[in-house]
Amino acid sequence: MTRTEISTIGEFGLIRRLTEDIKLQNPSSQYGVGDDAAVLSYPADKQVLVTTDLLMEGVHFDLVYVPLKHLGYKSAIVNFSDIYAMNGIPKQITVSLAISKRFSIEDMDEFYAGLRLACKEYQVDIVGGDTTSSLTGMAISITCIGEGEKGKVVYRNGAKETDLICVSGDLGAAYMGLQLLEREKAVLKDDKDLQPDFTGKEYLLERQLKPEARKDIIKKLNDAGILPTSMMDISDGLSSELLHICNQSNAGCRVYEEHIPIDYQTAVMAEEFNMNLTTCALNGGEDYELLFTVPIADHEKISEMEGVKLIGHITKPDMGCALITRDGQEFELKAQGWNPLQENNKE
Amino acid sequence: MTRTEISTIGEFGLIRRLTEDIKLQNPSSQYGVGDDAAVLSYPADKQVLVTTDLLMEGVHFDLVYVPLKHLGYKSAIVNFSDIYAMNGIPKQITVSLAISKRFSIEDMDEFYAGLRLACKEYQVDIVGGDTTSSLTGMAISITCIGEGEKGKVVYRNGAKETDLICVSGDLGAAYMGLQLLEREKAVLKDDKDLQPDFTGKEYLLERQLKPEARKDIIKKLNDAGILPTSMMDISDGLSSELLHICNQSNAGCRVYEEHIPIDYQTAVMAEEFNMNLTTCALNGGEDYELLFTVPIADHEKISEMEGVKLIGHITKPDMGCALITRDGQEFELKAQGWNPLQENNKE
Repeated sequence: MTRTEISTIGEFGLIRRLTEDIKLQNPSSQYGVGDDAAVLSYPADKQVLVTTDLLMEGVHFDLVYVPLKHLGYKSAIVNFSDIYAMNGIPKQITVSLAISKRFSIEDMDEFYAGLRLACKEYQVDIVGGDTTSSLTGMAISITCIGEGEKGKVVYRNGAKETDLICVSGDLGAAYMGLQLLEREKAVLKDDKDLQPDFTGKEYLLERQLKPEARKDIIKKLNDAGILPTSMMDISDGLSSELLHICNQSNAGCRVYEEHIPIDYQTAVMAEEFNMNLTTCALNGGEDYELLFTVPIADHEKISEMEGVKLIGHITKPDMGCALITRDGQEFELKAQGWNPLQENNKE
Repeated sequence: MTRTEISTIGEFGLIRRLTEDIKLQNPSSQYGVGDDAAVLSYPADKQVLVTTDLLMEGVHFDLVYVPLKHLGYKSAIVNFSDIYAMNGIPKQITVSLAISKRFSIEDMDEFYAGLRLACKEYQVDIVGGDTTSSLTGMAISITCIGEGEKGKVVYRNGAKETDLICVSGDLGAAYMGLQLLEREKAVLKDDKDLQPDFTGKEYLLERQLKPEARKDIIKKLNDAGILPTSMMDISDGLSSELLHICNQSNAGCRVYEEHIPIDYQTAVMAEEFNMNLTTCALNGGEDYELLFTVPIADHEKISEMEGVKLIGHITKPDMGCALITRDGQEFELKAQGWNPLQENNKE
């Protein structure tokens, strides 16, 4: 593959190359890349939602096994997911990148191809950003702007006693995908000619490398006339997110182990790794599924909704947050989710 | 000074400590830190402006001589400056930080103290962000959201032939401040007991370490009923920014060396460093002054405005972009501004 140094075109040349044929699709995107700031116009009946994420090489991604195109795709998706989690629709992103000389123009083309694919599929406009150099690893900072209907934005703090706790899709697969990639990386270190065999594990890799944001669930809820009382996306693990909702709503919860949705491949892989499956599903993280609560009156409607599982209910705060195991035992939920600032990171 | 490891409180604990007593001041800030996204409400007669910056340790700042409080202040200011440069008013920021174990809780307190001071002085709300770990240096990503009156947002592309070119404040001082700090750093390496003497150079240091955004100029222009035809802030150097305005406006320009505003301390320092003063003022960068063009009909009004200098005029595009020296010679303007991706960075 050709490798062209970024220094041959410089910062402005690179930005031009990556952004010059971007066409704005959303009416709220008035002016995109090319000035001191992007200009947006939101109608008075909308609220503007803003979320941001900073991804650091070696902490959030490992370029040994993450292709740059996938990285671009995922970097956008994780931000879209936060906007959907407010019952909103993502409309614009700004993209800031810090890269070292290790990266070529072609690398940046790949990253942007993934980013633009995600934007195309979710009808989001790239309206600005910053491209600069890094002395060490790559840093990616994306800010996503979206819109919510006034009065229909869903926060984490609205869960009420007797509300049903729901989760979309299945949990733990992205974490298993990461374990799988880490194992193959370790194996490849010893024997570079070995070709990893991922047959039967495609779903796990897809969940790790090419996650999607659940815009379909937001649409279904809206179509069914259900407005969740609280919602957030699952990025740090179900346990951690449940505790956020309960803390912010001043509530407790009961969640049933047997109802936690887990894919077959996740279960097989946990067995192979000799890991506790429920722990993986509770604390794995990077699922980008939606966790939300609905009034008990919506029980019938939500039970019929494809892709949504009812996993428990909200209680009074003094009941605490508990997991009920298959054999009826109660355990207090603890946040053991992914928390980079508590890990034993090397300087 | 006490040093408490961040690992003792973790990511969520750190975010809570840094943000828990933040009070939102602007009516457009509906919901700040603590959910998947911030929620803003802008009235229908406003446009929403969005700008973002990514600052990397070792590339954009050197913690050997930049105190963290100043760094926090400056990180916010450079984003406010971009919003003013659209003739807007900054209203919210999101703050993402990546930090290594080298940083303590007290360090982050310092950084946030600077950030919050800037926000207080410019009436901007901190509404969100992300705090995570870095394996190497510090990364700071700030996104600023502001408002502009519909029909009064000023772009780079509206300069017309005969328009007057104006610049606020003075140029080159921040660059000189940087040279000064770099020199002292080199000296201190050899003799650690040496106390640097910055007497008579305070302005240069202030311009480098604690720049301000020109909200006063935006107010003055508005009060005087002047709507610039084009505007941008000077972050990469006057030459580079003039070329942006001329390229995007399909115009040329004549700028007069004798009219470029330069502070006395900048001139003294250039002499001491044996540097060409005009080159420093044209290409130094980090001035965060406003460069703008106004119709010739506003000549009288703009000439009387304190803190604004008239430095030239816009011409037909085929005239090119020229600097007229004190002895009447014409030189083509070239962008030699600060461009990290063209520098000879080490991996």
